[in-house]
Amino acid sequence: MTLLTPLMRGTALTTEFSDLQLLQGMLDFEAALARAQAACGVIPATAAGPIAQACRAELFDLPALAESARAAGNLAIPLVKHLTERVKSADPDAARYVHWGATSQDAIDTGLVLQLRAALNHTQRALGQLTETFARQALHYQHTVMPGRTWMQQALPVTWGLKLASTLDALLRWQERLQQLLPRVQVLQFGGAAGTLASLGQDALPVAERLAQELALTLPDTPWHTQRDRLLEVGAWYAGIGGTLGKFAQDFALLMQTEVAEVSEPAAAGRGGSSAMPHKRNPVSCAAILTATQRTPGLMATLFGCQLQQHERALGGWQAEWEVLPEVVMLVGHALEETQLLALHMQVFPQKMRDNLDITHGLMMAEAVTLALAAFIGKQDAHHLIEGLCHRAIENDRSLHSVLVDDPQVMAHLNESQLAALLDPGTATGSAAQFVQRVLARYEERQHGTELPD
Amino acid sequence: MTLLTPLMRGTALTTEFSDLQLLQGMLDFEAALARAQAACGVIPATAAGPIAQACRAELFDLPALAESARAAGNLAIPLVKHLTERVKSADPDAARYVHWGATSQDAIDTGLVLQLRAALNHTQRALGQLTETFARQALHYQHTVMPGRTWMQQALPVTWGLKLASTLDALLRWQERLQQLLPRVQVLQFGGAAGTLASLGQDALPVAERLAQELALTLPDTPWHTQRDRLLEVGAWYAGIGGTLGKFAQDFALLMQTEVAEVSEPAAAGRGGSSAMPHKRNPVSCAAILTATQRTPGLMATLFGCQLQQHERALGGWQAEWEVLPEVVMLVGHALEETQLLALHMQVFPQKMRDNLDITHGLMMAEAVTLALAAFIGKQDAHHLIEGLCHRAIENDRSLHSVLVDDPQVMAHLNESQLAALLDPGTATGSAAQFVQRVLARYEERQHGTELPD
Amino acid sequence: MTLLTPLMRGTALTTEFSDLQLLQGMLDFEAALARAQAACGVIPATAAGPIAQACRAELFDLPALAESARAAGNLAIPLVKHLTERVKSADPDAARYVHWGATSQDAIDTGLVLQLRAALNHTQRALGQLTETFARQALHYQHTVMPGRTWMQQALPVTWGLKLASTLDALLRWQERLQQLLPRVQVLQFGGAAGTLASLGQDALPVAERLAQELALTLPDTPWHTQRDRLLEVGAWYAGIGGTLGKFAQDFALLMQTEVAEVSEPAAAGRGGSSAMPHKRNPVSCAAILTATQRTPGLMATLFGCQLQQHERALGGWQAEWEVLPEVVMLVGHALEETQLLALHMQVFPQKMRDNLDITHGLMMAEAVTLALAAFIGKQDAHHLIEGLCHRAIENDRSLHSVLVDDPQVMAHLNESQLAALLDPGTATGSAAQFVQRVLARYEERQHGTELPD
Amino acid sequence: MTLLTPLMRGTALTTEFSDLQLLQGMLDFEAALARAQAACGVIPATAAGPIAQACRAELFDLPALAESARAAGNLAIPLVKHLTERVKSADPDAARYVHWGATSQDAIDTGLVLQLRAALNHTQRALGQLTETFARQALHYQHTVMPGRTWMQQALPVTWGLKLASTLDALLRWQERLQQLLPRVQVLQFGGAAGTLASLGQDALPVAERLAQELALTLPDTPWHTQRDRLLEVGAWYAGIGGTLGKFAQDFALLMQTEVAEVSEPAAAGRGGSSAMPHKRNPVSCAAILTATQRTPGLMATLFGCQLQQHERALGGWQAEWEVLPEVVMLVGHALEETQLLALHMQVFPQKMRDNLDITHGLMMAEAVTLALAAFIGKQDAHHLIEGLCHRAIENDRSLHSVLVDDPQVMAHLNESQLAALLDPGTATGSAAQFVQRVLARYEERQHGTELPD
Repeated sequence: MTLLTPLMRGTALTTEFSDLQLLQGMLDFEAALARAQAACGVIPATAAGPIAQACRAELFDLPALAESARAAGNLAIPLVKHLTERVKSADPDAARYVHWGATSQDAIDTGLVLQLRAALNHTQRALGQLTETFARQALHYQHTVMPGRTWMQQALPVTWGLKLASTLDALLRWQERLQQLLPRVQVLQFGGAAGTLASLGQDALPVAERLAQELALTLPDTPWHTQRDRLLEVGAWYAGIGGTLGKFAQDFALLMQTEVAEVSEPAAAGRGGSSAMPHKRNPVSCAAILTATQRTPGLMATLFGCQLQQHERALGGWQAEWEVLPEVVMLVGHALEETQLLALHMQVFPQKMRDNLDITHGLMMAEAVTLALAAFIGKQDAHHLIEGLCHRAIENDRSLHSVLVDDPQVMAHLNESQLAALLDPGTATGSAAQFVQRVLARYEERQHGTELPD
Repeated sequence: MTLLTPLMRGTALTTEFSDLQLLQGMLDFEAALARAQAACGVIPATAAGPIAQACRAELFDLPALAESARAAGNLAIPLVKHLTERVKSADPDAARYVHWGATSQDAIDTGLVLQLRAALNHTQRALGQLTETFARQALHYQHTVMPGRTWMQQALPVTWGLKLASTLDALLRWQERLQQLLPRVQVLQFGGAAGTLASLGQDALPVAERLAQELALTLPDTPWHTQRDRLLEVGAWYAGIGGTLGKFAQDFALLMQTEVAEVSEPAAAGRGGSSAMPHKRNPVSCAAILTATQRTPGLMATLFGCQLQQHERALGGWQAEWEVLPEVVMLVGHALEETQLLALHMQVFPQKMRDNLDITHGLMMAEAVTLALAAFIGKQDAHHLIEGLCHRAIENDRSLHSVLVDDPQVMAHLNESQLAALLDPGTATGSAAQFVQRVLARYEERQHGTELPD
Repeated sequence: MTLLTPLMRGTALTTEFSDLQLLQGMLDFEAALARAQAACGVIPATAAGPIAQACRAELFDLPALAESARAAGNLAIPLVKHLTERVKSADPDAARYVHWGATSQDAIDTGLVLQLRAALNHTQRALGQLTETFARQALHYQHTVMPGRTWMQQALPVTWGLKLASTLDALLRWQERLQQLLPRVQVLQFGGAAGTLASLGQDALPVAERLAQELALTLPDTPWHTQRDRLLEVGAWYAGIGGTLGKFAQDFALLMQTEVAEVSEPAAAGRGGSSAMPHKRNPVSCAAILTATQRTPGLMATLFGCQLQQHERALGGWQAEWEVLPEVVMLVGHALEETQLLALHMQVFPQKMRDNLDITHGLMMAEAVTLALAAFIGKQDAHHLIEGLCHRAIENDRSLHSVLVDDPQVMAHLNESQLAALLDPGTATGSAAQFVQRVLARYEERQHGTELPD
Repeated sequence: MTLLTPLMRGTALTTEFSDLQLLQGMLDFEAALARAQAACGVIPATAAGPIAQACRAELFDLPALAESARAAGNLAIPLVKHLTERVKSADPDAARYVHWGATSQDAIDTGLVLQLRAALNHTQRALGQLTETFARQALHYQHTVMPGRTWMQQALPVTWGLKLASTLDALLRWQERLQQLLPRVQVLQFGGAAGTLASLGQDALPVAERLAQELALTLPDTPWHTQRDRLLEVGAWYAGIGGTLGKFAQDFALLMQTEVAEVSEPAAAGRGGSSAMPHKRNPVSCAAILTATQRTPGLMATLFGCQLQQHERALGGWQAEWEVLPEVVMLVGHALEETQLLALHMQVFPQKMRDNLDITHGLMMAEAVTLALAAFIGKQDAHHLIEGLCHRAIENDRSLHSVLVDDPQVMAHLNESQLAALLDPGTATGSAAQFVQRVLARYEERQHGTELPD
């Protein structure tokens, strides 16, 4: 369904998971295997060159491979067959040593790891840029007051900077998690037919070590053909960060509603127009992000279910990963690109934010008054009193201020100027600025930290 | 990821959801809309022809459409633009009336309904063939005795025919459900920008009725841009039948295990070979079915989540359906094809089934003896007694028969010939044959029923 | 976690799935089995009475049963044991015939079917009331104009009645589906140890028929211990209707936002207050509905996955249903109750709806102008022209009307009074009223239809 | 549904998530808040004592709280109300300061973190015991040869020790991930009504720091009311380890099948019996583990979906976590307990493993012969030749050995004694022992490592 790919999956990560890259991942394994075995004296030194030379994805007949894969049950079987034929035509002797001692899943899994490594590298950079954007914007908007909303109702004032900083805070945690998972994930798969490397005898571990080295991967303690927690971890990381992005996009779309209008997606020709309504500017980036994050939870259910793989090679669970894990990566990769676009070029309307703060005629500041009164009459009584006055203000469409000054119980404890100060949303953002500063400080520290070798 | 498509999604239904068919579905809507509006006098009679003539998917530049869709947020917006240009170059007057009064989602949803109608028709035929296969095989194997298994342990004898018939029974229910859902699903989507057809004024309902007629769809009582239960129902139907097929494939793979070996997938050149182990015959059809059914539950979670669409057009929930629903249909369509192959050409080994019945030295028949004894000493006591004798037989690796004849309490109530009869698995399949007959009778009745006009 | 039960699962359906009802379902099976077997002469006529008398859930020691179930693997095994002991103390002879020829799953599944029947009956009535409420409200608000919203942006005017009617339309489809699934679901489970009723010999089917009759259930063609499509169908029906309710609740919460304020949840003491903010009225019914519908998609993924049950009794898939299916039923049952409350007592603010229509200074009516112009200059050109004028209106914060009258190209084709009419949202609800009438007509027809015997 | 709790959720973790602990978590927050605010001079020093004394869950009326929670929308609102009343009756002055400056979600989330900390501590210990069990068993069975199985078909020999070690390998990775996530998760939630701690003014951060200290939690950089990645991470960790356990249980159940019979669950009175078949020993521990792991993927889909929480407090997403996250923890905690039982007391039958290796008449060793021949005639030709001979052996029910010695092409390169050695499964476990040693070495290192301060 390539017609929807640009809309759904952007470009950068989709390239990493193209047909050609899928083949190339497996072929990189086969080439490195030949080199490693030649280096260890397991196959003739002369065999490695011709094999490696044939390991270029663009040489292969993709439709033929795809068709053969159906009967074979996986792509590696026909690929090895075609590769062997290709090597044979150049060097019949070398052809004997193609895929020597390996099993299909060794090539498929290692190829996938190579694709994931490229994807994770790409995402790591993208995430670096995204945190930079959020850090800059959080700083810029740290004093921009707006309504905080709970239960989708205006609650108390917050700042746009705090909202951005709390997203940044989550993104920094995702960066931390990425650092921790990378060493676990960048590992070789090499076990042979049943995970014992039986056909390589005493040469098995030396070949495995050399092969890992060739591919710049770690050699894990055991083959992991049916222990899929590493792949699950990659999927969960992507889907998790997708959740953070989806939360931001959902908030953004809520703030961009016609009646709220506190922010807007960037305007651009051909962007977010409607075929029927010329005046509309649709939140297309939010839609793209939300589309991705609507899909990832179900895909993760599949990946969790895929952990139950049978014995030494699975029936269904393994194969289901082939499209599902790349799908998660590509969807979230797309959401990352769209979020970067959105966060970098968003339009923000501070005056509208202030205007919206006045909609409730000061009701939003009721807690401040409650707490001030509570010091005199206790929290429960103060709460009860102010709740009643709020309802009176709503019913009579009066400002809270006017209702408060009419109430003798209130005025027994607070004077008018105290009331005015308590009711000003601009001075009521509490520790928002400090929270922003804390996150930015961690961001800065992290930035300097990464300049050092680690 | 087209390299994996033949392995994952077969061919027939994949064609229905190709890029070209996706476009053609929308273009069929646009052509029918022009014809209906011309017939109702809403647009000039001369406009319909040129518009309809341009509504052929192969005329369009797919990569350009795909790229524009990203900024536009959906495919219909650039499609209508390109279509209008194309019509304009042939007939500038007609070009004014392209997509008249419609909204993107009208074209996209109706196009999807047309694709789903084709898919459901195809699946209905495939399901007809599959029930025929299962009916024939259930009849053929109605007396083929084999171990029944509960908790993945041998329990009591059943027949291979009963196992096939119980799958058939479920398939007949899926056919019944299909008949019930078809009228609900084959409906037009036509509501204009906000679902009121406002721009068509008094002509709205006449045009809608004519449009539905043009496309041989039903006109629903209201537009359903954000009421997606019909699509959910289609997905759930496919995923549900996938569950039935997955259950069969899982049982088949269990029966095909080296140590069980009661059935086998058909042998064919290049089918189910292993790159490392020449002796193996892998259950590739089972793997294909199980791969599909491993993925559908997560996709269904997404479709259920997609029901919560906002107001008159959704942000994320609608867009997430675009790939997910076709994916469910194609995966299960593939599973259906593979199940047909499997059920038609499977190898069955009745002798091995009988041999496996003897593995437990008669322990499997313990319940028959328990019940016979229960008539004398009560069920609890009989159960307790026989359980103890079973454990003795297991511990001493003796047949249940030899342990029973040594037990005075047993022999007080049963003689040797009674025991021998009770211990023969061949006579212990209870009502299995009657159950098979009941299902086959319903199948036959259904067959004759469908010959009549309905 | 009973502390959260009232908040999460209401009361009515929770009672149907209480511990006592769970036991009683199984005990009803055991009592009916004894009666059926006595009637068929399989067990002594005198045995049925004492067995049936002991089949009252309140007689059993629930904690002891719960504890024994862990080692046994299911509840029926200890229940049958305790039941037998209880019967024995009253009538040792009768005790021999408890659970005669049945298997644990026969009792558990049939018990579940009895619980589901009660739940479905309850839900059918609740749904009847809910459709009545929506029908009445859709009629009442059929001319109440409000902004339609697509992509979470104001689009064109709709009516509150149309939004209610489109929910009613979906609810009527769920009613229709319920009628179709009921006969498939209300079936007996009775197969004995391996689904062949082997231990009952020739008496099997007569007993099964009588047993079904005793419980007012249908006798299915085959036992269905590992064919779980019926239960899946029940779950999918509940989760599906949950999706419809969740869509309504989400829209309602969006409309109730402080800045939108077009509707409100009913006010009541102690309802929707905030511990910190006395002025707030939280949408607690919406929250309850959305909480339920946030959970059902994942639960459905489990039920779809549970279809792959092994052989004649499953290992994991069956057991996972025990809590998951009732959970879906109870969560959605609660959402139904809360939706009834919400739809019956909601507050609606038509004046605020009208006010919100004016926020866009007439931009919302741009499509009407576009279409009027399109008759003269073609749709594409008209769209392009009006899109430009809309952007000018937005940039200069002017009304669309004032921008239009300044544009010579517009005024070449339309005069001022035409423009004024085109820009009035009140006259621009298209076929909304007709759509409402169509749904109400179907509702009425359905109502009268159900008065007849069916 | 407490009747199923022992069967589904064991005991230890269920206690951590009982009604009482749920309340106590929130009350611990309230008590610590009072102490922290007294220490910071925000409330009178005399208020903390009476508040803390009332913060004992057993003092509260649970049914009343549960009922009030429905209207309030969460448990904290009625709890604070009841708590205030209780404090008031002892010390009216102190009652004014209950819940001072906090919001419901501060109490609920911090309470949950406290429950999760206890659960994680418990699970950390359980995982320590489980790795010890697997390490001991992997060592014990490192030379126990058995068939390796791919695609659910016998492939090549492996060892039972290798299978255990590869599970241990995964468990060690889960331990590593736990160490990494713990600091991220054990954090305070404290933000007040909109996440700014506005009502505490300048005292906010000092109080927050002191409060975190009181509860031995970390103070995060920002409140996280709608940034839920930490909770997601805990759920994903539990569900992930559940996947590893489910894989083990599924393999175990497959190996325990009547026809395979290589292992067995421990025998114990009342354990795994069948109500109808006295001879059976059902894999009840496997069933318990598989039941749990059948449910966690769907629950995780919900938790991923719950990430999209609106603004400063969510509508649905937050509330859905309340039961779902504890459910994941309890289900997997139960699976852990059952796996420990299984791994510690499992019965293993090495002779049956050897016998099963002979089922394929040496076909399993075909790869060894292929590779030996490949050195002479190339891999492709060798594969083709041996594949043909394997099929001949199968068709004629002969041993591979006898077919090989009859083949002139084979005997041209290999003599009989070479063939015999190649066909002995006992010498064909490749690097299995080395893989086991690598994992055990890491386990030992980890053990010693944890004795050091880290």
